[in-house]
Parts: sequence; C-alpha cells; structure tokens
Amino acid sequence: MTLTIREERRIEWGDCDPIGIMFYPQCFRWFDIATHHLFEAAGRPMNGLETRYGIVGCPLVDAGAAFKSPLPWTTEITVESHVAEWRTKSFVVSHNVWKGEVLAVEGREVRVCVARNGAALKGVAIPEDLKACFA
Amino acid sequence: MTLTIREERRIEWGDCDPIGIMFYPQCFRWFDIATHHLFEAAGRPMNGLETRYGIVGCPLVDAGAAFKSPLPWTTEITVESHVAEWRTKSFVVSHNVWKGEVLAVEGREVRVCVARNGAALKGVAIPEDLKACFA
Amino acid sequence: MTLTIREERRIEWGDCDPIGIMFYPQCFRWFDIATHHLFEAAGRPMNGLETRYGIVGCPLVDAGAAFKSPLPWTTEITVESHVAEWRTKSFVVSHNVWKGEVLAVEGREVRVCVARNGAALKGVAIPEDLKACFA
Amino acid sequence: MTLTIREERRIEWGDCDPIGIMFYPQCFRWFDIATHHLFEAAGRPMNGLETRYGIVGCPLVDAGAAFKSPLPWTTEITVESHVAEWRTKSFVVSHNVWKGEVLAVEGREVRVCVARNGAALKGVAIPEDLKACFA
Repeated sequence: MTLTIREERRIEWGDCDPIGIMFYPQCFRWFDIATHHLFEAAGRPMNGLETRYGIVGCPLVDAGAAFKSPLPWTTEITVESHVAEWRTKSFVVSHNVWKGEVLAVEGREVRVCVARNGAALKGVAIPEDLKACFA
Repeated sequence: MTLTIREERRIEWGDCDPIGIMFYPQCFRWFDIATHHLFEAAGRPMNGLETRYGIVGCPLVDAGAAFKSPLPWTTEITVESHVAEWRTKSFVVSHNVWKGEVLAVEGREVRVCVARNGAALKGVAIPEDLKACFA
Repeated sequence: MTLTIREERRIEWGDCDPIGIMFYPQCFRWFDIATHHLFEAAGRPMNGLETRYGIVGCPLVDAGAAFKSPLPWTTEITVESHVAEWRTKSFVVSHNVWKGEVLAVEGREVRVCVARNGAALKGVAIPEDLKACFA
Repeated sequence: MTLTIREERRIEWGDCDPIGIMFYPQCFRWFDIATHHLFEAAGRPMNGLETRYGIVGCPLVDAGAAFKSPLPWTTEITVESHVAEWRTKSFVVSHNVWKGEVLAVEGREVRVCVARNGAALKGVAIPEDLKACFA
C-alpha cells in the first residue's frame, strides 16, 4: 500500500483565465502544496528533513501535466497524490486531479533530495527510513 | 528558419521561494506569456484568431519542464520560444530559459486549436496559412 | 447579526518569499476567494447574480491591507470575512487574518455591483433582497 | 526632484479573470517588483542593504490600491513609482498605473526598514544616506 493523500479544492475565480477555465500554471501550485502535505502525512514534514536526514529540501528536476478535461470556474476537484517511484537520489510524485469520476489532469513531479555541500547543494541518496514512511 | 522570440526577464523577489530560488510554477506563467507573444510576433495575435480562422483559442493539452540549474533571486534570464512541431490539430511550443550560456529550464507546451461547436469546443485542423506565419 | 465566514488556511511554501514569510499579494487572493465564498454562504453565489438581479459581477473599487504580524511558512491562519458596510452601489468586505489570537492582517475590499449597459458596464443600486441575505 | 521609475507592462492572459480584466491581486505583484527596481535605480538594491546599512529588508506594513478604470487583456500600461514619504522607520511608495493618459490604478505601499535583533527583526531608523539616493 502506498501512502496517498486526497485534497478537495474548488476552481476559484482567481484561478481562471478569460475563457473561464483554470489557468494552467495554477495546477502546479497545487502539486507543490500536495507534495508538502504528502510528506506531512508521512510524518516527515519538509521543514524537519534537515535535522533528521541532513536533507535541506527536494527541489524540482522535472514537472509535467497532461490536461484532459477543462476545469471551469466553481468546479469541485480532488487532487490525489502519492510517490509513484523512488530512485537513488530522486523520486516521482504522481498528482491526479479528479473532477468527479473524470481524470481531468494527470501530473507528475520529479524531485531530488539535496544536502548542503559547503555553500552549494548536492543530491544525496534517499534514506531507506524516509522511503519506508510512504509505504 | 523558424520564427523565434527571446524575452529578457529577471527573477524577481515574488518569483522566489524560501530557499531564494524561482518557485517552479512561475516558469509556466512565462511560457504562457511567451506563447502569446510568439503569436503576435507572427502577426497572428491570439485575440484575432477567431475572426480570421474561427479559432477561439489554443488551450493546453500538455505542459512540462526540466529544471537543470536553479534560478536564484535577481538572476537575469532569457526565455527563448518557437513552435517546435505542427501536428494536425495541435502544436508544440518549445521554451528554453537561458541563464547566460547555461540552459536552466527546458520547457514545452502542447496546445490544441479549438473552435466553437455549439456551446462546447472542438479541436480543428490548423490552417496552413497560420503555420506559414511561423516559418 | 452579520453573516461571517471563517476559512482555515496554512501558509504554504509557494506563498512565501525568500525571507520565508507570506509574499503579501497572496493575501489579496485569499480575500477574493473569501468574498466569493461569503456570497455562497449567503445563498447568493456570484455566478447566479445576473439571472436573479441583473448584476454581472462585483469588481474592485479599492483594496487594502494592514500587515501587523509576519506569517511564516507553515503558519495556520483563519481568514474571517463579513460585509462591513453597504453603500448605495458598493459595499465593503472586511477580511481579518488571524494567527491564533493574533490579528495578523486587517484587510478590506470595496466592490461595486455592476450591470450591463450595452457593451459597457455601469454601477447599479444594490437590491435590498441581496443585502438581507447577509444579515 | 524625486527619483521616479516607469515600467512598461502589458495585461497578459494569465493576469486576467473570467471577465477578461486584470485580476486585482496581480497589481500588487507589480508594485512589489517596482519597489525593488526603484531601489536599484537609486543605486541601493535591496540585496545590498544589509552589508551597507544592516537593513535586512523592507517588509510591508500596509498596502492599498484604488481601481479607477478596468484593465482588459492586452492593455498596455505604465507603472510609475516613487517614494512619496519618508518617515522615521518606514516609508511610503506611490505606484500609479497609467493606461495612456488615464490613471487606472492608484496604489501605495508602506514599508518598514528592519534589522536583525537576535533571531527576530526590529524596525530601525532609515539612514539619511539611503534617503538621499532617492532625491
């Protein structure tokens, strides 16, 4: 079983463009929020990773979304998120945006775990203990 | 020769997250702006497509970005955009974000040309005349 | 008794600037959302005002906020909103952002009710029936 | 003579709401950018204030805007900004948004100069040398 979170949202006025549907960059803001909440649901909030693992953050390496159905103003949606894949230093978060039974957006983020390396940052191997929290 | 536009930008305070680097969804806002400006540079502004071709807009089908180098606050960047591929009803816009000689973000949008179909919208074949403006 | 809504929010990563506190324009996005939700709580959602009253929307005339206490990343807040004053064609919405017992932001929006006037818009007197829903 | 900057902008697709006019919180993002640019034009960029004056930043105390004329998609605007008032620890930045000859938005920010005070921040008197740069 993979830890999965579901967040209810609504397409708000300020999320929409002049056609009256979600302006697509907004979607990535929800993905970022969802990933933070997913780590909290796993008992590993992002702002506690440095103390525990020396990981100062998980910046993006890649992000993408397929838009399958438009999201007009006032639509009720559910953003469903889970870690889809663990790699050595990076991981893939899957974000599906549901409009009722319809999969409206299929998104994903690839993030890398980084630690301090002097003044710079470097990718580090993801601890098994961290991965285990998302099982 | 493919029509290419280059827009100078700077990473502003409000574009950045608590680590002090660009918050990634911002990047997609620039892509959207760049695509609109690209159509203008082609002499085919988005708000004139309906009168000329019956195309009411070009909503997103897919968007993605690979983040190769962080963009800290005050970084000067250039967003370089062109249509990388014309398909029957959709097209791919490539957006490269340069930090000097470094390719910091490699982005792309896939958009579909839509026309009114009663109260709904439907994809339509992209007119040759439109494609020709981007050559 | 004036109809008042309270919305729980959290200061998310993407809401924050490089100092790690809420980037202030975000606050106005919450105000806009809260006003829409307030109208729904009153049984008068914004997207139903045209059919019922001929009012096509309530654009902003003025907006302001006093920032009294910083809102760092992960802070839990409550946005408390009510109509503070009804004028002839416009009204004032008060938005207080609470961080526990602390009033962190004191905001307000002044909005005008507009109807179609040919291709343009004009301010119209606010119906008593509408005001009564917020009592 | 007070140092004044003018920035040309355009109301972009993603700045607009479903009515097709600027979504008002966007305006405050431009104000924040303009204030940063104003400090640069004065030869005192925000990220150099700590070294020079021990000032770590100038967070908002108050912000407001009067919206006098709607800003539809594709409108060309000029954001004109200057320091309108210096107080002991805070200052007022005036931001006027022009649509040709029409004053469309009249905005202002009140910001306080802060220095580190242990782990916290405290307001500090604005150095005369800093003020002089905006004359």
